[in-house]
Amino acid sequence: MTKNLKGIAASDGVATAKAYLLVQPDLSFSKSTIEDTDKEVARLHSALDQSTAELKVIRAKAAESLGEEEAEVFDAHMTMLADPEYIGAIEQQIQNDKVNAETALKAVSDNFISMFEAMTDNTYMQERAADIRDVSTRVLSHLLNRPLPNPALIDSEVIIIAHDLTPSDTAQLNKKYVKAFVTDIGGRTAHSAIMARSLEIPAVVGTDTVTTDVQNGQLITVNGLTGDVTIDPSEDQVKASEQAATAFAAQKAEWAQLKTAKTITADGVHFEVGANIGTPKDMDGVIANGAEAVGLYRTEFLYMDSSELPTEDDQFKAYKEVLEKMDGKPVVVRTMDIGGDKKLPYLPLPHEDNPFLGYRAIRISLDRQDIFRTQLRALLRASAFGNLRIMFPMIGTVNEFKAAKKVFLEEKDKLVKDGVKVSDSIQTGMMMEVPAAAVLADQFAKVADFFSIGTNDLIQYTMAADRGNDRVSYLYQPYNPSILRLVKHIIDSAHKEGKWAGMCGEAAGDPIMVPILMGMGLDEFSMSATSVLRVRSQMKGLSASYLKTLAERAVTESVTNEDNIALVKEFTESK
Amino acid sequence: MTKNLKGIAASDGVATAKAYLLVQPDLSFSKSTIEDTDKEVARLHSALDQSTAELKVIRAKAAESLGEEEAEVFDAHMTMLADPEYIGAIEQQIQNDKVNAETALKAVSDNFISMFEAMTDNTYMQERAADIRDVSTRVLSHLLNRPLPNPALIDSEVIIIAHDLTPSDTAQLNKKYVKAFVTDIGGRTAHSAIMARSLEIPAVVGTDTVTTDVQNGQLITVNGLTGDVTIDPSEDQVKASEQAATAFAAQKAEWAQLKTAKTITADGVHFEVGANIGTPKDMDGVIANGAEAVGLYRTEFLYMDSSELPTEDDQFKAYKEVLEKMDGKPVVVRTMDIGGDKKLPYLPLPHEDNPFLGYRAIRISLDRQDIFRTQLRALLRASAFGNLRIMFPMIGTVNEFKAAKKVFLEEKDKLVKDGVKVSDSIQTGMMMEVPAAAVLADQFAKVADFFSIGTNDLIQYTMAADRGNDRVSYLYQPYNPSILRLVKHIIDSAHKEGKWAGMCGEAAGDPIMVPILMGMGLDEFSMSATSVLRVRSQMKGLSASYLKTLAERAVTESVTNEDNIALVKEFTESK
Repeated sequence: MTKNLKGIAASDGVATAKAYLLVQPDLSFSKSTIEDTDKEVARLHSALDQSTAELKVIRAKAAESLGEEEAEVFDAHMTMLADPEYIGAIEQQIQNDKVNAETALKAVSDNFISMFEAMTDNTYMQERAADIRDVSTRVLSHLLNRPLPNPALIDSEVIIIAHDLTPSDTAQLNKKYVKAFVTDIGGRTAHSAIMARSLEIPAVVGTDTVTTDVQNGQLITVNGLTGDVTIDPSEDQVKASEQAATAFAAQKAEWAQLKTAKTITADGVHFEVGANIGTPKDMDGVIANGAEAVGLYRTEFLYMDSSELPTEDDQFKAYKEVLEKMDGKPVVVRTMDIGGDKKLPYLPLPHEDNPFLGYRAIRISLDRQDIFRTQLRALLRASAFGNLRIMFPMIGTVNEFKAAKKVFLEEKDKLVKDGVKVSDSIQTGMMMEVPAAAVLADQFAKVADFFSIGTNDLIQYTMAADRGNDRVSYLYQPYNPSILRLVKHIIDSAHKEGKWAGMCGEAAGDPIMVPILMGMGLDEFSMSATSVLRVRSQMKGLSASYLKTLAERAVTESVTNEDNIALVKEFTESK
Repeated sequence: MTKNLKGIAASDGVATAKAYLLVQPDLSFSKSTIEDTDKEVARLHSALDQSTAELKVIRAKAAESLGEEEAEVFDAHMTMLADPEYIGAIEQQIQNDKVNAETALKAVSDNFISMFEAMTDNTYMQERAADIRDVSTRVLSHLLNRPLPNPALIDSEVIIIAHDLTPSDTAQLNKKYVKAFVTDIGGRTAHSAIMARSLEIPAVVGTDTVTTDVQNGQLITVNGLTGDVTIDPSEDQVKASEQAATAFAAQKAEWAQLKTAKTITADGVHFEVGANIGTPKDMDGVIANGAEAVGLYRTEFLYMDSSELPTEDDQFKAYKEVLEKMDGKPVVVRTMDIGGDKKLPYLPLPHEDNPFLGYRAIRISLDRQDIFRTQLRALLRASAFGNLRIMFPMIGTVNEFKAAKKVFLEEKDKLVKDGVKVSDSIQTGMMMEVPAAAVLADQFAKVADFFSIGTNDLIQYTMAADRGNDRVSYLYQPYNPSILRLVKHIIDSAHKEGKWAGMCGEAAGDPIMVPILMGMGLDEFSMSATSVLRVRSQMKGLSASYLKTLAERAVTESVTNEDNIALVKEFTESK
């Protein structure tokens, strides 16, 4: 029976395909007494064989999509499935205690896990505990005949249905087969949503119930423009969905006309529209969408994709590639923005109760100057190959900015003395995401060359609400006058000192936010590459001078987020 | 040999006594093979007997200091030590596997723990898992002859040495015997420090190394005014410490003269100096120190001291007692300010990655209106007995304030209709601790009757730095111009609408902050009761009009926290 769901439109596009549930099955079981223990041991071995066969496929796919190093973990899993000590102990328990294979598997695995975990000073053994946990879950799934889903095994067109998608889930999605995804939780600014836009896969998030409403294999239509999801659609609904897909393709074609155009408003004002990237691979999208700059190059992936710290040379190559591809257009590189919520094998960070309020980004860089100096040297060396701008994340005090700048100048001096070619016009700026910095922007504008507003974090801290926490997601209010006042103060402060201000958060590409920011005179808008043409098209239809009044009223008259949504409608629809 | 340590002066006073280490001993052990297993079982029973004897004493002390209900957990522990299934399994493992008692105890306990913990839908069994963990640790400590420390067992004068003190550790400290405490970590605003000031126990925190520098029983002098700690002091040092104690007592006597005085500056301006309380018991300190108001009544303790939600009547009695004791002077009661970092048996809160940015305080109250309405009804009924002001915590948007106010008015109407006597002049205000609210204070001043600035949280969110996290403690900067700008904007906004503004954070009693706040015209200062007389004395020596220039320069000229410390010195020392 047809069922309609409404979620949050998270990534543009329309698709129709069968559902693939990326949901952990229920693996609970009861203990039972077994008479024919030989038969039970045989059942165990059948599950072990199935697990090994499955791991072989996953390993091959992982090597292909993620690389040989990432795939090696599955070798460890297969070795474990053949380990006589581990498997022998399970067999023995079945034989001696006459229990079912599930019970023996669980008891023996738990024993190994707690033994390995107790060795708290041995990282290797701790990782083995995680391996046993993974492997025993897989074997259990075969014993119970409730297979674990795996994106790597998908080989036909599907729509992924999940409670949530982790960045690593999303990274494994094959664009060839995955036509869209729909999740229970999340918002437009969740990592999964950002990734979907970057992959140009339609997505609807925050449906609350999709994982319980949909069965594997049911036909589904997904509209990532409106947030509509239909389960078991009627023929008419399928047809309507196909028409929507055609219309979207037509609009994209129209936007494509703007690819080589500059971003000019109806009254002839130019705004710089740039794109955010994570790795040099993303440059294809940047070029394809005609971005005027890379407004944010997140360098975290260099640190997260590897089992050791990235070398100066590895970093140099990545930065150089991006700078060269931009061919003289600006590239803003943000230095390492990592915190205790990420686990890195080579940089053990302490457990923190509130990692978003913890040791992260510039706070680590200033403390671990070995890491910071390596990154700055790589950037300085790459600066000879393009128009580099360096940006420090999570700056909260003027002293932090000065300390970071000092390290930068020291490394620059060293390289120059060594005869290395270094650009002499590298701008050094900062993210505006800590409320303290936003409030004191006029003082920061005296020392920084530019500001780039990170809306997600600025909103999160200003509202004191974790943007990943569903219970307080109502406080993610980009148009709240408090946020807009800070944004305006940042822009005005930059201009007063002859500096420029940009925005590299998700809000920079938001259709409601764009007119407000135009009215405030934001210089640079940086967003997902796939949003560049849509925003360029929107700006083309608006007059910047007319929007000044909108911007002023948004911070003086408005009291709530909703007031400002209404105000933008009033200004853009009456025009 | 004498050793000097320097920490953060966290609670005034000077003391000399022997060290008592409140540090978990190392309970690691190796597995070994036992020939005489009967003897090993006997060794187990000896440890069980010692554990039971110890638990009896702890139970009795807990019943005395914390109440019968809190003590009952120890009954459960004693029952467990006599449980034939649990103990029998350990004995059997010693006999069958010929292992030492430590190994058998650990293996059996771990087994029980993981079995109980697996019952995730059964809170009772989950708690039993925690009990087994506690009990087995205690038995292990006796097997290894490395006794667990316990504040309840202290019966002579000591100075407590600990890595950190939890609120519940601090609550168990007996002022009669505990002359001071010293910790490795923490700052002036840690909960342990706040509690120490409220108990008037000298304390030095953040020494980094005290737990490794000091042995149980060593003589120590602690100066909570300077942060100095001396281990194995010389005779001269003991004498100097005693002199410092005498001098401190003399200064306290001088301050005591101000007990019944109003707080008047050198130029005749009156500021209201109030005290913060947690329970009606704290009223003794409020009266003893002559506070002009209760500027913050934290109602969390009502919720945390109990195994179920506090009833309307229980709350009514507590509020009424405080209001009556203040005899018409203002009492500001803050509604429930609890979040996911606290575990309450009757209010299961979800695990949160960043609880300080999560579901807490008014966010819970507006969602769980059953709890909120009960608290408001209790407050409304108590309002007939004094000068009540109600304050909502963690307000971030005007809509949240309006929603809370609406619930308040609904409950008021109901009570009035039912003929219950309710004050008609209850002010309803809000905490200023979410940066968004501070930035938009002018809009909030149109709807709230007053503001009370919570500096700890306001600094934490504005700086994006968890105040409990040592690695980012350098960002706890109360005098940073960004913080002071927000504080000034809050005060100015209140005054513009004819409302008043107070501060109930720790900074309100800080000697550097007081002159700045006087210059800004803050109306009410609320602090630990023990700070009231010191602040009154400080204000008496300062001219409010002269400090206006200080306040102005602190937010326009200064760039850093340090700039403002220097500026205050310039203004107060030149005077």
